[in-house]
Amino acid sequence: MPLDSLVRELFTEICRIPLIDPHSHINPHQPASRSLDDILGYHYYTELAHSAGMDQKPLAADVEPRQRVHTILAYMDRFDNTVQYAWFLEIARTFLDFPGERFTAADADVLWDAAERRMSQPDWENEVLRRSNIEKVFLTNDFDDPLEGFDTNLYVPCLRTDDLVFHLDKPEVRQRLAKATGIEVGDAASLRRAIGKLFEHFTRKGAKACAISLPPDFTPRPSQDAFWMLAEHCHDFQLPFDLMIGVNRRVYRGGVYQGQDLFDQRTSLLQYAELFNAFPEVTFCISVLSSGQNQELVSHSWIFPNIVTSGHWWYSNIPAYIETDLRARLQAVPKTKQIGYYSDMYKLEFGLPKFNMYRRILARVLADDFVRPGILSETGAVELARCLLRENVERIFGV
Amino acid sequence: MPLDSLVRELFTEICRIPLIDPHSHINPHQPASRSLDDILGYHYYTELAHSAGMDQKPLAADVEPRQRVHTILAYMDRFDNTVQYAWFLEIARTFLDFPGERFTAADADVLWDAAERRMSQPDWENEVLRRSNIEKVFLTNDFDDPLEGFDTNLYVPCLRTDDLVFHLDKPEVRQRLAKATGIEVGDAASLRRAIGKLFEHFTRKGAKACAISLPPDFTPRPSQDAFWMLAEHCHDFQLPFDLMIGVNRRVYRGGVYQGQDLFDQRTSLLQYAELFNAFPEVTFCISVLSSGQNQELVSHSWIFPNIVTSGHWWYSNIPAYIETDLRARLQAVPKTKQIGYYSDMYKLEFGLPKFNMYRRILARVLADDFVRPGILSETGAVELARCLLRENVERIFGV
Amino acid sequence: MPLDSLVRELFTEICRIPLIDPHSHINPHQPASRSLDDILGYHYYTELAHSAGMDQKPLAADVEPRQRVHTILAYMDRFDNTVQYAWFLEIARTFLDFPGERFTAADADVLWDAAERRMSQPDWENEVLRRSNIEKVFLTNDFDDPLEGFDTNLYVPCLRTDDLVFHLDKPEVRQRLAKATGIEVGDAASLRRAIGKLFEHFTRKGAKACAISLPPDFTPRPSQDAFWMLAEHCHDFQLPFDLMIGVNRRVYRGGVYQGQDLFDQRTSLLQYAELFNAFPEVTFCISVLSSGQNQELVSHSWIFPNIVTSGHWWYSNIPAYIETDLRARLQAVPKTKQIGYYSDMYKLEFGLPKFNMYRRILARVLADDFVRPGILSETGAVELARCLLRENVERIFGV
Repeated sequence: MPLDSLVRELFTEICRIPLIDPHSHINPHQPASRSLDDILGYHYYTELAHSAGMDQKPLAADVEPRQRVHTILAYMDRFDNTVQYAWFLEIARTFLDFPGERFTAADADVLWDAAERRMSQPDWENEVLRRSNIEKVFLTNDFDDPLEGFDTNLYVPCLRTDDLVFHLDKPEVRQRLAKATGIEVGDAASLRRAIGKLFEHFTRKGAKACAISLPPDFTPRPSQDAFWMLAEHCHDFQLPFDLMIGVNRRVYRGGVYQGQDLFDQRTSLLQYAELFNAFPEVTFCISVLSSGQNQELVSHSWIFPNIVTSGHWWYSNIPAYIETDLRARLQAVPKTKQIGYYSDMYKLEFGLPKFNMYRRILARVLADDFVRPGILSETGAVELARCLLRENVERIFGV
Repeated sequence: MPLDSLVRELFTEICRIPLIDPHSHINPHQPASRSLDDILGYHYYTELAHSAGMDQKPLAADVEPRQRVHTILAYMDRFDNTVQYAWFLEIARTFLDFPGERFTAADADVLWDAAERRMSQPDWENEVLRRSNIEKVFLTNDFDDPLEGFDTNLYVPCLRTDDLVFHLDKPEVRQRLAKATGIEVGDAASLRRAIGKLFEHFTRKGAKACAISLPPDFTPRPSQDAFWMLAEHCHDFQLPFDLMIGVNRRVYRGGVYQGQDLFDQRTSLLQYAELFNAFPEVTFCISVLSSGQNQELVSHSWIFPNIVTSGHWWYSNIPAYIETDLRARLQAVPKTKQIGYYSDMYKLEFGLPKFNMYRRILARVLADDFVRPGILSETGAVELARCLLRENVERIFGV
Repeated sequence: MPLDSLVRELFTEICRIPLIDPHSHINPHQPASRSLDDILGYHYYTELAHSAGMDQKPLAADVEPRQRVHTILAYMDRFDNTVQYAWFLEIARTFLDFPGERFTAADADVLWDAAERRMSQPDWENEVLRRSNIEKVFLTNDFDDPLEGFDTNLYVPCLRTDDLVFHLDKPEVRQRLAKATGIEVGDAASLRRAIGKLFEHFTRKGAKACAISLPPDFTPRPSQDAFWMLAEHCHDFQLPFDLMIGVNRRVYRGGVYQGQDLFDQRTSLLQYAELFNAFPEVTFCISVLSSGQNQELVSHSWIFPNIVTSGHWWYSNIPAYIETDLRARLQAVPKTKQIGYYSDMYKLEFGLPKFNMYRRILARVLADDFVRPGILSETGAVELARCLLRENVERIFGV
């Protein structure tokens, strides 16, 4: 859809709202890219290039990064229709002074050199944050992360717990847990003490959320297992619990790194009913993988006080599904219970194009569903956007 | 979307079609609201206020109604983005002379007083019906409802059968059934006789439908159980059978009254294939809870002569899903097999904003998908609307 | 939506792309219709007329065809809202000089006579192909089809294998297989030899694909069964494997011929994960029946190199679902991995209205999602359309 003048005005105003990005995979010790290889090494590009015919040899560790970038760029005209391509184009145009509308393989050297030049500037990290209007970025920290050596006010720690719930039977995970907590886990009581230690460590270091991704067939039950204990600790430590529901790991076993996971639409939030009933004081920030399940999420957030809609995740993070899912949320979920968007990014440069994608759609939905029918003024629409993009994050996570 | 001039003209013409509302929860002895408490006591407002943070104390029976309204209104700015809020705004502007575009807590007294004044007028019920252009309203009657003391031509009885199918093991239900029919149910034969008595009573009193809501995992089988017998009696008494498919009861056990139910997307109309095959002469008017299942409904109505699409129910009754679901129905289901909309209301005042929501969407879909591409003239589009909103209800239910 | 000038221009340009129709049920010995009975005998019309109230007597073999056409036309005003009605209208206007915008029963004779006149022209088949801008049409051939007596360059053979996978226990199927291959199948080894013979025969005759339709609960496993062997032979003979996923046969047992099948939304592409992993060199062209599963298809095609999206099938082949599904594919699947559309037609006359339906939607999506936001020029958008409608078919199937 074209950005007409109303949509453009709303977009401009929405872009003025300083962002708090409530979920990312940023490494706080190396938050910005150092080269074009960091940009095009994002799994979206490696997996799309691979899906479109590239074998995995260019991705090997011993391949010269500049050569890898050449190869990926050479495959890009096979997926230049995708929104992920558009993200990269926006990065190149915004951050690398790229003047074109499309890439060709011939652009690889120019882009590489521009990236080298820009990314080696000493203030690059701050410039990216400033131009992206991002004030804080939530992280995804392993449970044994020391959380040291970075500004936890800027890069907000978040306790990621997949390992504890799904891999606690692995010796290396137990060893990491023992090392992090000083507790050898052997039974439920020792597991509970270890988890308590982790929550103490993380909250002392400024963590503002606990998070986990879950397979489609997962059904939490009241028990002495790690998942239920995490919910209990979220209650005790007053941490919101981010549930990222629906991912099957390693479905495509020959896929590139981080490009092997898919989903199964045969899943329901009903599987979580016992959890939601058992922890009325824990805020569950829920991401789903399919637009079909988004309707379940809308209905559950409308009914359960402790459920909040959270962003547009992965396979649902494309405009066609964002638009449908966003419209339904705005029409049926209290505005105070919606976390509009998070970047999920690994490198800071992706914050701008991803949030812009969301902001453009938000501007259009606000224009069409609220301003034009007379439900909200333009000012009111921007306030609603501020609620989704900023105020709810502040209040829900206490940042 | 804005209402452009074509959409506005279509909307105006569609509003002229006198409505027969084929499903509501109106109490015919008290059809209109008597105070603002009746309006804001609708579960949509109590559940959204609760979801947005209100505890349940204001909902207790001993709370002064005016105070309850104050409290709910005070929470409304947390969900003033929702379509349910827009319904209330339209009620206030249409029926209570409210001049504003938004509510504040300061409006509570003015609204309360306006409601007191208007709703105590002796002709209030008729005025609401007249201004809503509603001629008849279908009810939802317990099986032991005497169906007396009201005009069954205006308020059309409908035999609701959830208790018979899902709660017949409860002593109080059996006692009610014994009292209503004079039959102590002990086996399939006595159950059949009792159900026969109920159908005789209801049809004698002008009932035009049998109805039931069903959980997502329900699969009817040929048997001597109550559900199958109901279908047999629908056949014998030539009553359409309204199936409202997909609701799980009491999912959020701490929720407000009528605000505890949700759905599970893992359900299919295929579960009903035996039923549809076994009763080719019974018209099944089917409502579904999810937009995903709407595609199943579209396909089933397209294939089975005895399946009719029925309204936009509950969690699918918001514009984003109505629009998608309606477009698909209009493109693939014979127009004579679509019941456009029902109010599901408990108080008459909700007929106007709910039908208006549907009529606005219908006007836009007719404009975009039929009139502008040259498929229908404006007159033809209004005739199609009349088919959905009026003629099909008359023919299918025989009213 | 109206066709504005940009959409009209794109549509016009897209119509200039010569089509290769990669899936149909054309009988190459009788590809075009010989009478209006061939047109209205298409199951869409018989099933919609039956669904709307027509009994099956007019469909009996001994009914005079002209009378059958009269009867079906008489029921058409009950489903003149459907897109299938619009297909017939476009056929009548394009091929039968019908001047009207709607049909009445009174048009039956005029239409019948016009069809008689036009369809008896000696060059009718070629004229239909020419006016539809179709260069090649893929067939659906029984495994024992001799594939003789027609131009396999124009009508491209495709080995349809439902019988081998689902009906091999039937004596008549075994006899047909024995007759076609000279092999009496008794064990896995003989089955493998027989399938090998079929692939040899089909590829020698110019077959370019193997195809099958599959029920929603089907889950292929590595084994000695026919399905897995077919995948092995697709690998050995380098034939793409068309999987048409999700159909339940004979759901409505009293339905008209070919009007008895439906789907069950409770299905997932995850069921095929082993297959996709086991045959990385086989291209799987996948069609799904529901818009919900389309999101799974988008994600799987984005991740698996050997999965290609294929057309808009049956119950998803209506504009509301095509538009949603197409937008998602264009935003997230490499453009080289999308087979835009196929006709699924039984008679050539349906190619034009079906492809036009798709081309109109494609033009609008390209305008709104690509040209107006500045992502593609008009020329670029038409090139993208050419990729979907022509080049991918040529490259993937080797035609």
